[in-house]
Amino acid sequence: MTPIRGYVFDAYGTLFDVHSVVEAGREITSDPATLSTTWRQKQLEYTWLRALMGAYADFWVITEAALRYAIRRLGLTATEPQLRRLMEAYLSLACFPEVKPALGRLAGRPRAVLSNGAPAMLAAAVAASGLTTFLEHVISVDRVKTYKPSPLVYALGPEALGVSAGELLFVSSNGWDVAGAKAFGYQVAWCNRSGAPAEELGARADLVIDALDKLPR
Amino acid sequence: MTPIRGYVFDAYGTLFDVHSVVEAGREITSDPATLSTTWRQKQLEYTWLRALMGAYADFWVITEAALRYAIRRLGLTATEPQLRRLMEAYLSLACFPEVKPALGRLAGRPRAVLSNGAPAMLAAAVAASGLTTFLEHVISVDRVKTYKPSPLVYALGPEALGVSAGELLFVSSNGWDVAGAKAFGYQVAWCNRSGAPAEELGARADLVIDALDKLPR
Repeated sequence: MTPIRGYVFDAYGTLFDVHSVVEAGREITSDPATLSTTWRQKQLEYTWLRALMGAYADFWVITEAALRYAIRRLGLTATEPQLRRLMEAYLSLACFPEVKPALGRLAGRPRAVLSNGAPAMLAAAVAASGLTTFLEHVISVDRVKTYKPSPLVYALGPEALGVSAGELLFVSSNGWDVAGAKAFGYQVAWCNRSGAPAEELGARADLVIDALDKLPR
Repeated sequence: MTPIRGYVFDAYGTLFDVHSVVEAGREITSDPATLSTTWRQKQLEYTWLRALMGAYADFWVITEAALRYAIRRLGLTATEPQLRRLMEAYLSLACFPEVKPALGRLAGRPRAVLSNGAPAMLAAAVAASGLTTFLEHVISVDRVKTYKPSPLVYALGPEALGVSAGELLFVSSNGWDVAGAKAFGYQVAWCNRSGAPAEELGARADLVIDALDKLPR
């Protein structure tokens, strides 16, 4: 691998555990894991679909739309206060246990988040999980009003860090994000937390790890 | 509704039953319905992802990539001849039973297919299901090298038929396709065969039906 001059992290699923919203789901369903999975899948779909339609709405809007869809799809009902509590869980997602020490080990080179999240969502999640001092840059797709895996989004990393994509290590737990970043030109580590098969999108990770404490310095 | 001067149909799921490949799946799994569902979901995801990445590959390539992913994801194995047989099932999908009489009733105004399918796939499926004489136009996204719901795709309908989108009725069973076509400016009928909830993408169908024989003339 080319020497690494900086790190760019995906947020949701990579630093933050999106399924930590499960607790809030218990109010409206006995199967909050299915709610969480359905919500997350639809959230991603809506980013792709709205980006392709040229009808960007920010990630807060999309996350709420996906939640409303998931609730109806699963035949559940939720009052507006229950829905608000589920949404607010997104502002205080837990980070995975190894994230803080793993980011700490990488200090000395710039560490960035590059995420679909709306700026206020990212700011809240970074603060709530105590990651503020571990990240030099928090970059939202909102700057370019589209979503991953658009090259317009991946270009924000090199631009913010002043380092070319080929000298940056992009880190994501999402296989499709790995393919997008690799196609753009980053070095890429896939943090395959769940043992998922690789996506068949014509681009493979340079490195596969199962948790962030395995990242090379 | 504005008078309708022509009809534009989605193909897969709307005219053709993509789950009619289930039979071919029995060779490699005792649960071919799950294989079919996983395959279809991943096929759609790959169209959205590749379109957003700016890395178009045609629908035949994407369909095979999605099948390979689905097989690994479900822990199945398939020989290359088995994989070829599953792919070939896409060339002779069954059309839903009401399709022929429904299209026949609409004769007199132009009837088009506007589909993600590669030209050779569409030609094969239209011929195999006996729909050739019921369709004046068969239009593939391949002309613009991107996928639905990109406006570049929806623009192909008015262009081929010489009728403005607002005077065309776009018909799809896919909720996200309904939203894309409506946002583009078509009149839209959602053929909601499965009783699915509407997508939360900010655009609703003008008409919801449960089979194509309910279409207005």
